[in-house]
Amino acid sequence: MNPLDKTYFEITYHLYTDTEEEVTQKVEHIALEQSVELPRSVLSASINERIVGKPGQILQLDEHHYRVSIQYPLENAGAEIVQFLNVLFGNVSLIRGVQIHSASWDPLKHLCKGPAYGISHIRHQLGIPTRALSCTALKPMGYTSDQLAELAREFALGGIDIIKDDHGLANQAYAPYAERVERIQNSVKRANEQTGYTSYYFPNVTAGITDLERRIDIALEHGCKGVLFIPQLASLESMHWLAHQKTGLMIMAHPAFSGSYVTSTHQGFTPAFLYGQLYRALGADFSIYPNAGGRFSFSLDQCQQINHDCRTTASPFQGCFPTPGGGVKWEQLPEWIERYTNDTVFLMGGSLYQYPDGIRAVSNHVRRSLQDHA
Amino acid sequence: MNPLDKTYFEITYHLYTDTEEEVTQKVEHIALEQSVELPRSVLSASINERIVGKPGQILQLDEHHYRVSIQYPLENAGAEIVQFLNVLFGNVSLIRGVQIHSASWDPLKHLCKGPAYGISHIRHQLGIPTRALSCTALKPMGYTSDQLAELAREFALGGIDIIKDDHGLANQAYAPYAERVERIQNSVKRANEQTGYTSYYFPNVTAGITDLERRIDIALEHGCKGVLFIPQLASLESMHWLAHQKTGLMIMAHPAFSGSYVTSTHQGFTPAFLYGQLYRALGADFSIYPNAGGRFSFSLDQCQQINHDCRTTASPFQGCFPTPGGGVKWEQLPEWIERYTNDTVFLMGGSLYQYPDGIRAVSNHVRRSLQDHA
Repeated sequence: MNPLDKTYFEITYHLYTDTEEEVTQKVEHIALEQSVELPRSVLSASINERIVGKPGQILQLDEHHYRVSIQYPLENAGAEIVQFLNVLFGNVSLIRGVQIHSASWDPLKHLCKGPAYGISHIRHQLGIPTRALSCTALKPMGYTSDQLAELAREFALGGIDIIKDDHGLANQAYAPYAERVERIQNSVKRANEQTGYTSYYFPNVTAGITDLERRIDIALEHGCKGVLFIPQLASLESMHWLAHQKTGLMIMAHPAFSGSYVTSTHQGFTPAFLYGQLYRALGADFSIYPNAGGRFSFSLDQCQQINHDCRTTASPFQGCFPTPGGGVKWEQLPEWIERYTNDTVFLMGGSLYQYPDGIRAVSNHVRRSLQDHA
Repeated sequence: MNPLDKTYFEITYHLYTDTEEEVTQKVEHIALEQSVELPRSVLSASINERIVGKPGQILQLDEHHYRVSIQYPLENAGAEIVQFLNVLFGNVSLIRGVQIHSASWDPLKHLCKGPAYGISHIRHQLGIPTRALSCTALKPMGYTSDQLAELAREFALGGIDIIKDDHGLANQAYAPYAERVERIQNSVKRANEQTGYTSYYFPNVTAGITDLERRIDIALEHGCKGVLFIPQLASLESMHWLAHQKTGLMIMAHPAFSGSYVTSTHQGFTPAFLYGQLYRALGADFSIYPNAGGRFSFSLDQCQQINHDCRTTASPFQGCFPTPGGGVKWEQLPEWIERYTNDTVFLMGGSLYQYPDGIRAVSNHVRRSLQDHA
């Protein structure tokens, strides 16, 4: 394979097949499917040379398990995120035994711009130079705006850094978006005046094509500094669009509706590719993922790989804060910091709600624990 | 379980677990996860009663294989497609061994409105009362607008009913969207004048949040009657939005980027749920899916189930034309019509491009074959 020039980008796949013969066929299939979608026999020499994906050497990693990289002309993505995603994983998503492990982000950096802020700017803006951050979610669905605002007040008085809407809070009648954002944001502001430190409220702006801008405007109007966004529901492209609107809003990406891409070991994306590389490339300042030991089922190794891909300086993008959710009890924060380092946002929900002495008390324990291990 | 009242909708899951004990836990987990995301111990009686999902009886189907339906309050979806999708498959997408088989569309019909046209209106508009329809894709990427227009002319002169952009044609420099749509549409119009019957050109309007409306406007300006749309790339919600804009455009949905939801037998959606039920509910007039025997790997049974779910009159929505792609050679059309009935659109690509006597000749064979088996 030629060294990657700037007019190509490269995708690295892991392939699972029964025989060596099959893997060669599969690579040829992918290179054609993700570009011309025709057999080579009907292609002109020029299309064959200019447009078709160029596979590198196939490497055997294990029995029935291979790795290969394919280079695609940047012009096939046509300067559009949507079409880049199509080349990345359009029809190939339908082929069993194909899993994406990485992409060469350097030649893609004019298309995918990464987070608008990233770890170091967020630390600067929040005035938290070294310690890990805490995050929690306001819930349950069914609470009124006032009930949620009261909860937010308790979390803020206890000193949680980021208080976000639960990803299921949308625009339901029991807590309509505009009313909810106003009441919670005011409640958090008042708590901040009382404590002297700053908690931030991130409303969930995820919405359809006609409502998204209105929700963003309302968040800005009330002075929010960040938002929750579910890229697999609104669209990956709209997250990138939002990141580069110069709104000043930080984006916390939530993994709802994305699980099918990462729950198979032989298909889709590795969790690190999706929640580390891709969400970061598409503008997530924070990437929430289901932590090892929580209600879902990633291994500690997979989580460490997500953390790595969120932060690595080998990427052309600003760093993205890995935000493991679930599986973290406040008493264990020192151990988790030891494992994941301080460049981590710990998202704790259920375990705080269950604390017998109340939310303010447990939030205070969280804050002290993070400060003690800075 | 109470009979479903109009303020609830129901999702039916297949669950795969090792033990009977685990399945009970899993059902409880899903009912909470897809509503309140908190343990029952911290919920008020009112939230518990009004908001949490209500599971029905668990039925064992086979060893380690169970079925259960859960009812959710409609108000949890808050009159929004995005939030309905979140309740349908948000966090539960991250739980292994959970597959969605069906939803009760009747109580959802004011939220999801189905196709704006559907099979009978399309037949009326196209003047094709009974026979099956043909469809092909213009490709490869890398061709200029003029080359694609020349191809379209040949397909139209041969009498293919729907000539669509390949799903990889976006706005690349070699065939920019506006130029391409104008040239192809004109080329097809001129061919129609020559033949006396009507071929339709469907451009690919799939695009990001800021470009989608412009692409739709250009398609309308040139008199297109339908468009290609990739819901998993642009967003499922934007397909529904487009369907109900009263533009007059029929929507052909393409499955790119959706494969991970349907390639596992134990996770995600059944192919019939995604390409039959969900795409139909969200406005697809045509639903392209990978046909049995083609480059991808659905079974004939799975395809028949997709066809059924696209067309069934038990649904509150207009019928959606199942559009099997791949695996159909024109010589075999009579057998496929026998299997799938005439309420089918046959999407043929590679096999037409490879015909030795050229595209016009093979398109003519296709047309005669469909007419002979009306």
